[in-house]
Amino acid sequence: MLVRDVAAALSAQVVGDGSLAVERVVHPADAAAPSDLAVAMSHEAFSALAASKAQAAVVSEKSPKPHGLKAVIVASHERSALARLTALFDRGPAHQPGIHETAIIAPDAIVGENVNIGPYVVIGPRSRIGANSIILPNVTIGADVTIGAKALIYSGVQIGDRVSIGQRIIIQSNTSIGCDGFSFLPVPGNEGGADNGATPTRVHSLGTVEIGDDVEIGANTTVARATLEATRIGDGTKIDNQVQIAHNVKIGQSCLICGMVGVSGSVQIGDRVLVAGGVGIADHVKIGSDAMVAAGSGVGTNVPAHGRVSGYPAMPHERTVDIYMFLARHKRLIDDLTEVKSRLETIENSTANKK
Amino acid sequence: MLVRDVAAALSAQVVGDGSLAVERVVHPADAAAPSDLAVAMSHEAFSALAASKAQAAVVSEKSPKPHGLKAVIVASHERSALARLTALFDRGPAHQPGIHETAIIAPDAIVGENVNIGPYVVIGPRSRIGANSIILPNVTIGADVTIGAKALIYSGVQIGDRVSIGQRIIIQSNTSIGCDGFSFLPVPGNEGGADNGATPTRVHSLGTVEIGDDVEIGANTTVARATLEATRIGDGTKIDNQVQIAHNVKIGQSCLICGMVGVSGSVQIGDRVLVAGGVGIADHVKIGSDAMVAAGSGVGTNVPAHGRVSGYPAMPHERTVDIYMFLARHKRLIDDLTEVKSRLETIENSTANKK
Amino acid sequence: MLVRDVAAALSAQVVGDGSLAVERVVHPADAAAPSDLAVAMSHEAFSALAASKAQAAVVSEKSPKPHGLKAVIVASHERSALARLTALFDRGPAHQPGIHETAIIAPDAIVGENVNIGPYVVIGPRSRIGANSIILPNVTIGADVTIGAKALIYSGVQIGDRVSIGQRIIIQSNTSIGCDGFSFLPVPGNEGGADNGATPTRVHSLGTVEIGDDVEIGANTTVARATLEATRIGDGTKIDNQVQIAHNVKIGQSCLICGMVGVSGSVQIGDRVLVAGGVGIADHVKIGSDAMVAAGSGVGTNVPAHGRVSGYPAMPHERTVDIYMFLARHKRLIDDLTEVKSRLETIENSTANKK
Repeated sequence: MLVRDVAAALSAQVVGDGSLAVERVVHPADAAAPSDLAVAMSHEAFSALAASKAQAAVVSEKSPKPHGLKAVIVASHERSALARLTALFDRGPAHQPGIHETAIIAPDAIVGENVNIGPYVVIGPRSRIGANSIILPNVTIGADVTIGAKALIYSGVQIGDRVSIGQRIIIQSNTSIGCDGFSFLPVPGNEGGADNGATPTRVHSLGTVEIGDDVEIGANTTVARATLEATRIGDGTKIDNQVQIAHNVKIGQSCLICGMVGVSGSVQIGDRVLVAGGVGIADHVKIGSDAMVAAGSGVGTNVPAHGRVSGYPAMPHERTVDIYMFLARHKRLIDDLTEVKSRLETIENSTANKK
Repeated sequence: MLVRDVAAALSAQVVGDGSLAVERVVHPADAAAPSDLAVAMSHEAFSALAASKAQAAVVSEKSPKPHGLKAVIVASHERSALARLTALFDRGPAHQPGIHETAIIAPDAIVGENVNIGPYVVIGPRSRIGANSIILPNVTIGADVTIGAKALIYSGVQIGDRVSIGQRIIIQSNTSIGCDGFSFLPVPGNEGGADNGATPTRVHSLGTVEIGDDVEIGANTTVARATLEATRIGDGTKIDNQVQIAHNVKIGQSCLICGMVGVSGSVQIGDRVLVAGGVGIADHVKIGSDAMVAAGSGVGTNVPAHGRVSGYPAMPHERTVDIYMFLARHKRLIDDLTEVKSRLETIENSTANKK
Repeated sequence: MLVRDVAAALSAQVVGDGSLAVERVVHPADAAAPSDLAVAMSHEAFSALAASKAQAAVVSEKSPKPHGLKAVIVASHERSALARLTALFDRGPAHQPGIHETAIIAPDAIVGENVNIGPYVVIGPRSRIGANSIILPNVTIGADVTIGAKALIYSGVQIGDRVSIGQRIIIQSNTSIGCDGFSFLPVPGNEGGADNGATPTRVHSLGTVEIGDDVEIGANTTVARATLEATRIGDGTKIDNQVQIAHNVKIGQSCLICGMVGVSGSVQIGDRVLVAGGVGIADHVKIGSDAMVAAGSGVGTNVPAHGRVSGYPAMPHERTVDIYMFLARHKRLIDDLTEVKSRLETIENSTANKK
């Protein structure tokens, strides 16, 4: 790929030799070969350019022009440029072409054209895998599963029966889709104190999971199946690692659910919601579209559309900040009260003396 | 199954034709065939009945009687009825009968009657699998493991050496049972500041994990082995997805441990304890029977039997609520203090004027 | 192994017959055979000695000398002694010698001497496995991966392309190393409210993960690859179960990262840092060497070297404790203010009466 082609993909200008060929994008410190294109759009990376072996670099339009390079791409909108750059140079995970001889695919499963399936993959009866999909080793896909075209499923993923997934899914390693929901009737003793040896009664999960197009799901994440209907994840929603999506949850389109978030049973989340890392959401809570939930929050009540909540328990962000500021000033509050009491005493003593 | 049989299993009345055959329980909106039994015990589902193609439904005794159906089952105790209904219609995960030819079972392992073992399962030396168990693909079971009858182990589960499990266990996908405990002597430098290049010293995990009867463990959950003895999970206890049970932990019977709970080393939990989602419990803490721990709590001190704690740090629930109410009123507190100061000033000025 | 050899390894004294042979270390209650060495260094275990069948025991120098045993090892520094004892008797996980015939190893992968590889392991092109390593079943290792000597990789572990790992690594079951980072440009609508159907734009993960020597990583943990460079974990650092290490993170040497910790993108952690369980660390935060982060904290700002922080949001530990104490006294504060108002009123009334 030529520097001028990269620049064109970024809608960016080239200073210098646009015909230089590049093969990799790297941090300036890692540039080794003439074909390494150094990405130096951050302050830190830009300052590493000076000692770099790079001959070509992408810099921010806010930076001064670097010297001694054969070609410089000057990009605006750094994060967006980084997204395009990394997409251009991503070759995806290594995999073998075709279907490995050890893959066990049910005779009535339907595998589309140009699908790559790695060793020790198991695909159950009547399941369908869309064209141009890649399934890495040691994946199990149950019965009656539907997966759209261009899926990328990493090793160790487990997908249960009847799960339905749209096109262009990406699922990272060791994730479980379609496990049973955690739904039990507690033992009565818990409230009444009776120790009757009973065990919690299971509500079975007869439903499924339905996932839209362009969804990404991180590693070691769990998505539980619904009791009767479907746990749903809308088009374009991206879910990080170590996330738990419980039974009956409905998540809309283009949400970002960050790492270690726990979404309890029957929660409803709108479109374009941002849930930062480590958040817990209590069951049956509704979160409106375009809401933002700050990291570490514990959400126990509904959040309106465009709402911004934080804290444990989560409240509108300004109220949480007010409380933090109040707490930060607690010493002054105590001091004020002590002073007030002292002034009161002075007055009381003076009044007493007059009598 | 006939509607009258379903009703009998629910100890419920039938209005209409009890001889109607049903094959599936569904949400009213998903009813398609005459054999679909619509479950309409919630307000939301009941109102969906009107536009449903269902010919038979289960409704709550609190609802009005729906019109236009051939058969209606009128249930009391909705959650309990749902548990029975879903149990009646659960056919379990699809699996092949028998032991798949690619399963690698140590010659001295003992597999009971009527056990189904999927492709690419590995079972180590001297391990025993109880009768009527189902093990889905890509599961590894170590050496000297004992698993009771009627186990259901989903794909991707890893069970370490010497783990002992009772009857009727259910373990969801990608869960790890019997991994090593996280037990290290910190590097002294951490306290003294010396940078001596030492690494934390490992306390090895020579113990095991012992799990009772009727236990369920969710997906991507971890249960670590003990240092010398056994990490124990009592009969009937149910554990959700993404839970961490550390080394030496003892959990009693019929507990419910919800998603993303972290139970640190040597914690002791009694019987029928409910630990809601996202809770962390510090090491060596003891939680008495019938206690409840609210979602997101951080438990650093013991909880008595029947105790109910919440918050971070966790306290008796009423105290946590008191503190939340205090914080919610902090503006009024500041205003009160400001007013008090102003009134004081007025008095002081008036006193000064008199002099 | 003779009692006197065990004592020598612990630099401890023997009282009684040092020539007694022992094969296992157990809790006193589990002692069954004459070759069981009871570990009774805690109060609880020591008191269990009385009813134990043990003939040999390790006790703390702080305990009285137990009676009726053939041999007693008297240890100082109990935790350190436990570490050495458990190391002495750890035989590691059961595994088959050699490379199992079902392991699929790329022809150009390089496997060192005396490596044990279990069934259904897949190793990709050009990857290198160091000598004397053990890889348990159902593990997938991608292309161009380097793993040093004496690795111990438990079943179900998934390691992505180009990951580099030092010597003596231990990785527990179902852990994912080298999954993609969670890095997206949010849909603009999230701020402006426009519902344009766009999906978050992906920043691809072209970088890798580099892990030092003597690192341990728990079960069901995730370590994401960097955008361009490497997510780094330094020598001797130990990571527990259910931990998330995001893209571009740098962790120094000999850290202890406890269970369910979430480390967000581009976080930098120094050496010998102790991060307790359930902590969340926001992206780009820097934590200095020898710092300690208390359990359940949410760290949103930098922590200096030797700093000790706790709380949500995390602050210096003394400040967090101050706030907890302030909150614990909130009733007295309200009472004080009420009393002040009452006294004020008395004065005001008395002044009014005089007029």
